[in-house]
Amino acid sequence: MRMYDLILKKRNGGKLTKEEIDFFVKGVTDKTIELYHISALMMAIYFQGMDEEETLNLTLAMADSGEKMDLSRIDGIKVDKHSTGGVGDKTTLAVIPIVAACGVKVAKMSGRGLGHTGGTIDKLESIKGFQTSVEPEKFFDIVNTHGLCVAGQSMNLAPADKELYALRDVTATVENLSLIASSIMSKKLASGSDCILLDVKVGSGAFMKTYDDAENLAKEMVKIGNGAGRKTVAIITDMDKPLGNAIGNSIEVIEAIETLKGNGPEDFTLLTRTLSAELLKMAGVKNAEEKVLEVISNGKALEKLALMVKAQGGDENYIYDTSLFEKAEFTRQIKAEKDGYISHMNAETVGIACAKLGAGREKKGDSIDFSAGIKLFKKTGDKVAQGEIIAEIYSSSEKKLDDAERTFLSAIEYSRTMPDKIQLILGKVE
Amino acid sequence: MRMYDLILKKRNGGKLTKEEIDFFVKGVTDKTIELYHISALMMAIYFQGMDEEETLNLTLAMADSGEKMDLSRIDGIKVDKHSTGGVGDKTTLAVIPIVAACGVKVAKMSGRGLGHTGGTIDKLESIKGFQTSVEPEKFFDIVNTHGLCVAGQSMNLAPADKELYALRDVTATVENLSLIASSIMSKKLASGSDCILLDVKVGSGAFMKTYDDAENLAKEMVKIGNGAGRKTVAIITDMDKPLGNAIGNSIEVIEAIETLKGNGPEDFTLLTRTLSAELLKMAGVKNAEEKVLEVISNGKALEKLALMVKAQGGDENYIYDTSLFEKAEFTRQIKAEKDGYISHMNAETVGIACAKLGAGREKKGDSIDFSAGIKLFKKTGDKVAQGEIIAEIYSSSEKKLDDAERTFLSAIEYSRTMPDKIQLILGKVE
Repeated sequence: MRMYDLILKKRNGGKLTKEEIDFFVKGVTDKTIELYHISALMMAIYFQGMDEEETLNLTLAMADSGEKMDLSRIDGIKVDKHSTGGVGDKTTLAVIPIVAACGVKVAKMSGRGLGHTGGTIDKLESIKGFQTSVEPEKFFDIVNTHGLCVAGQSMNLAPADKELYALRDVTATVENLSLIASSIMSKKLASGSDCILLDVKVGSGAFMKTYDDAENLAKEMVKIGNGAGRKTVAIITDMDKPLGNAIGNSIEVIEAIETLKGNGPEDFTLLTRTLSAELLKMAGVKNAEEKVLEVISNGKALEKLALMVKAQGGDENYIYDTSLFEKAEFTRQIKAEKDGYISHMNAETVGIACAKLGAGREKKGDSIDFSAGIKLFKKTGDKVAQGEIIAEIYSSSEKKLDDAERTFLSAIEYSRTMPDKIQLILGKVE
Repeated sequence: MRMYDLILKKRNGGKLTKEEIDFFVKGVTDKTIELYHISALMMAIYFQGMDEEETLNLTLAMADSGEKMDLSRIDGIKVDKHSTGGVGDKTTLAVIPIVAACGVKVAKMSGRGLGHTGGTIDKLESIKGFQTSVEPEKFFDIVNTHGLCVAGQSMNLAPADKELYALRDVTATVENLSLIASSIMSKKLASGSDCILLDVKVGSGAFMKTYDDAENLAKEMVKIGNGAGRKTVAIITDMDKPLGNAIGNSIEVIEAIETLKGNGPEDFTLLTRTLSAELLKMAGVKNAEEKVLEVISNGKALEKLALMVKAQGGDENYIYDTSLFEKAEFTRQIKAEKDGYISHMNAETVGIACAKLGAGREKKGDSIDFSAGIKLFKKTGDKVAQGEIIAEIYSSSEKKLDDAERTFLSAIEYSRTMPDKIQLILGKVE
């Protein structure tokens, strides 16, 4: 088999066979295929696309390209939840304790963040002592005992995807639905859960800018998941404005804790409850919505988070007393520049402002300022008066506040009339 | 400037600026751009194309990427002729002596052949003593004295094109008209002639299989040539059947000699005279057609070839006595398999048969069997009787005859009714 022939076939709109895709993924994994062949094929796929079967075969081959999580040592149905990423998205932190409190297990491998804010495990590290590096034995033990564990990805899951994504990222071949879907799903499949719930974000703060794109991506991923024998559902949710009111690391953990106590912001509370109930339903739990409300009101969900934190070496007192989280040295209040309504708050720009405060990483290995972040008091649709405080920004560097403030303010547009309300939950694909 | 941005722009259908193209070509030449970036851009160009200005800028940048022939030391107008390549195409061998005999100079750099048969300089090397490696001083001297010289390409002309073509060749990104045109024209521009006549071949033995493709390529190249300030004309000619009756090396030289004596095959004679007259007209010579006939009938054209051969160290007696050319050890006569008309003779397949006889090179540096080749007695449109000799094949290896015979026969189709006559000269673009 020759890469030339695969490229030519795809360039001319042909369909790659399973054998050809396997050959390709093997060559990507063991680095026997030249990068210039890979990038040419990726660009041909960008233009010609892949059909359902090709996409599934690519995903399966990538999922099989390295180590795979074997969750058979955990009893019962294991569920996983994945977000395509957004600003202020701390959903995992709130959803998995709720689900675990309802008796469904979550054995979650999570990556570190790159960009606006940290990833889930970065956020958890703002809790003193919390260990994200967990040996497999202990990982299974924690999940079997408490029903949940979030560990940093230590295994070599889907290495072909890692290679491929790195090359696509520098050759302008990321934006193809089949490739995006197979990249995400290869890691999910290798992570071993029985049920996969996808939170596909759409809007200014998301990778997918339009509903149609998000829905198409959702459909691709759901087809792959189901095609691979995993129960897969996707919820399409708004990411045009930031999710919740906290964007950062420790302040996002605090917001998740408040939400587990029933005191979260309206949008984040709705999303958390919706996704939790969906996961429970996927796992066959009856009266899911009621159970979600129950474990929030009786404190069981919050307790689950505390148990997990403790099991992973963290100080569980942080969960019950959020004043323990380290505070940022510098705070600045941001004021509305006009009277009227906030007609738009560009979530990506807010994310960039947050990164400028020190909450994100520019490149792998950069350290994160856990206390840096943005607290929103007003969001899209809210009425404001000029000079009214709309947000607070936090950083360990006063200088960073200036730059971040300018960026934050540039994210905001005002109008005289009340803008249309944006729905949070936009669609569902199953 | 970043390659990522160029790739993204082109992928999205944008237009590359002169600065971007110069940056790209410089990076290709000095190898500071990653091959995976280059192949991704080539594939994006394959799908999105380039407009006239981009194509000209790419060509000029590649022409400027290495050494350039400075023909200012040769007096008068210098003309060049380029064929996109075909089977039995010995046109240069006949055209340049005619043109030189009419007083127009040809300072030709020529590459070695790869594939079916040798290139022009390979063919000339079948003349005992002929030297294709000529020092610049001597090259200019020969052209100034005799009006013509064909030397092997020793200079580093258009190295960016060499790099780019080698990569396109292995990544299925050759077939784009702008890229093909700029590849050919970058070398022509660097070769320094004032007038460029392009013989664009179309049909089964040519790179361009349809007239429309050939015409489009011709238009692209003519636009580039004229855009670069060179008088450029393209003639579109048939290459559905082999050109002339001889395919090989020494037998092609012999056919060219016969044609210069007025005894050539009808099709090759027509092409030679048409291209010669066109070149003369481009150089401003009046009554071009008459002059061509004159130098053939008075022997001046043949004499020019002999003078060039002698000046380049070859034995000019070969020109006047073609029995001096080395003969192949083995000859086989090929007979018609059916009664009827030859309705098609696939020129590419005939070329492959010729390569199997030893007349071509599979890879750079392979040696060529000068005496190997195919002599056609019947061609497309001719009436044949079963068992009638339609061709002779020559080789230094009897074993090769078997394989070549099978291939040759597979090139031929028969019909009961006379096929439509194919025109040789199909179009002209100027």
